[in-house]
Amino acid sequence: MTDGLEILPVRGIGDVVAGDDLAELITAAAPWLADGDVLVVTSKIVSKAEGRLAEVPADGPAREEARREVLAAETARVVARRGPTTIVQTHHGFVMAAAGIDASNVDKTHLVLLPADPDASARQLRAAFAERGLDVGVIVSDTMGRAWRNGLTDVALGAAGIEPIRDHRGETDPYGNELEITQMAVIDELAAAGELVKGKCDQVPVAVVRGYPRAGIGDSAGASVLLRDAASDMFSLGTAEARAAGLLDAAQLPDGALPGLPIDPAAVDRAAAAVAGLISPAVTVAPAEVVTGSGATAALHLRSRDMTPAGLMRLGADAHRLRAALAAESIVTLSLPHEDGIRLELSGN
Amino acid sequence: MTDGLEILPVRGIGDVVAGDDLAELITAAAPWLADGDVLVVTSKIVSKAEGRLAEVPADGPAREEARREVLAAETARVVARRGPTTIVQTHHGFVMAAAGIDASNVDKTHLVLLPADPDASARQLRAAFAERGLDVGVIVSDTMGRAWRNGLTDVALGAAGIEPIRDHRGETDPYGNELEITQMAVIDELAAAGELVKGKCDQVPVAVVRGYPRAGIGDSAGASVLLRDAASDMFSLGTAEARAAGLLDAAQLPDGALPGLPIDPAAVDRAAAAVAGLISPAVTVAPAEVVTGSGATAALHLRSRDMTPAGLMRLGADAHRLRAALAAESIVTLSLPHEDGIRLELSGN
Repeated sequence: MTDGLEILPVRGIGDVVAGDDLAELITAAAPWLADGDVLVVTSKIVSKAEGRLAEVPADGPAREEARREVLAAETARVVARRGPTTIVQTHHGFVMAAAGIDASNVDKTHLVLLPADPDASARQLRAAFAERGLDVGVIVSDTMGRAWRNGLTDVALGAAGIEPIRDHRGETDPYGNELEITQMAVIDELAAAGELVKGKCDQVPVAVVRGYPRAGIGDSAGASVLLRDAASDMFSLGTAEARAAGLLDAAQLPDGALPGLPIDPAAVDRAAAAVAGLISPAVTVAPAEVVTGSGATAALHLRSRDMTPAGLMRLGADAHRLRAALAAESIVTLSLPHEDGIRLELSGN
Repeated sequence: MTDGLEILPVRGIGDVVAGDDLAELITAAAPWLADGDVLVVTSKIVSKAEGRLAEVPADGPAREEARREVLAAETARVVARRGPTTIVQTHHGFVMAAAGIDASNVDKTHLVLLPADPDASARQLRAAFAERGLDVGVIVSDTMGRAWRNGLTDVALGAAGIEPIRDHRGETDPYGNELEITQMAVIDELAAAGELVKGKCDQVPVAVVRGYPRAGIGDSAGASVLLRDAASDMFSLGTAEARAAGLLDAAQLPDGALPGLPIDPAAVDRAAAAVAGLISPAVTVAPAEVVTGSGATAALHLRSRDMTPAGLMRLGADAHRLRAALAAESIVTLSLPHEDGIRLELSGN
């Protein structure tokens, strides 16, 4: 590995406006830049140079309204809301509070949006340095919150000329164990390291990491490889939002063909236990024989000693309670009301 | 801010065993340590020195069984499961895959657990350096996954002699805007920076950060201030787990006094629309007058043209569908079946 790194601030870049040549500004401020350096560039100055600004009123309700509209335009989907906080997934795929829109370090009539394509921004900036004869890696960084831990850290939105991931797969430790922890998000760690020498208000929008081994890296994969898509993300929705989705699932339990997969009897018992105190004392739930061609792999029969209209309606509601509890155990159901009660056909999912 | 940082690897520490004096091992390997340095110490060597190991069979099903038992003992609650991955919250409060239990860099008959109290470990290590006349900050680090982003990064499990958070509250930028992003988790960023010079298999378990301004810091708050408790965490459960919890909520909708809070009529409309295609064509849902002392602020009346036993059971199930859909909109309900149908009393929550 490396003999050590230096993390150096680049001061004196000053205010950046649309159309500015960032490579020019950075090389003027840091004439000591050298081949092999990795530049960590705050996304804000990239956005400003690229004109990624939205005009908004300086204050009042109109500002709030405009801000909401800008947020909606930057949002692909809402991930979670609580109080004034809205966490969204942007069109790029970043999960960030307020879509990364920022009102700091810009005049009061503008909001700064994220760069449209931070990997492309990083590639362009790296190419602009290459034109000056400098072979550097470029990371476009921004500040993000995270689940589970207080406080914010800087991560990489875009990258060029540096491998985003250091992969330990196939390595064995001195004891002969193959490594379990395999993929380090090194560009996020480099962005975090850069943040340590950058101020929020101190006009230090660029840090240089010197000594990180990136020799031989050409046009690498960008930071987008760090984006986990919602389908493979175990935390794609806020807990409250997912819980509400589960309630909606219960409201919309389908009646249709069943997958025909096997069922763990213990899961059925857990579901029955979950509603035991809530269903009518007049209602009984008993295993039934599987007879239909619905794909069921098990069946339950609900009956009630109370066959008055109120008792029958209660039986229907209780059957739906049980269906929801079974769904919570990943068991899908088909409800078949008949004169004698309700037959629930069950299948694994 | 700083003029720049150096991140230096500490090599030659060698294998660490229970009872080892880490301060002794580190100062021997890095005689160049100086006042003001921040040591980033991989939690694994802290655990080994403290004897935080669990004995397990070297292979076979017995090993897997023992590993499951160790995981259960280290787990305060399960956060999410998918396939072979179990993410838990440890008794310390960390949210980590497999409770941070690690089988690498240890012989095959042991697993390494996290230190019992990483902040205490950091304080003790800092005190041991102080006894040698060295005023250093200490971070105990480990590798963690995160939501939304692929790849792992190192974060701080414990800290001493360094402020865990750099707080920008009250600062204004050059444009006069008060900062919105206020609290940087700098010890996590320092841990990440340290990881860049540490190998996973290279026996470089310690990095030194030189030049980070921590002068005047005595016994600071530890890394535990970065732990977000589940109640204030918007991602306290995996999406699938929270969705299952929502299904269970639907199974267990209570019948009791209502909070009496106002309701957004649009939310009622959304709930009705959510079940419109699923409830029986014979069923009608109409607003009703609020008359009871239940705390309801709105009421709905469900009736069916089909008053056969099957029709009445269906009406009961449909009412429960609507209750679940209303609950998804944060509207609580009380179900009152009677001869003429079902009256749902509604309240905000």
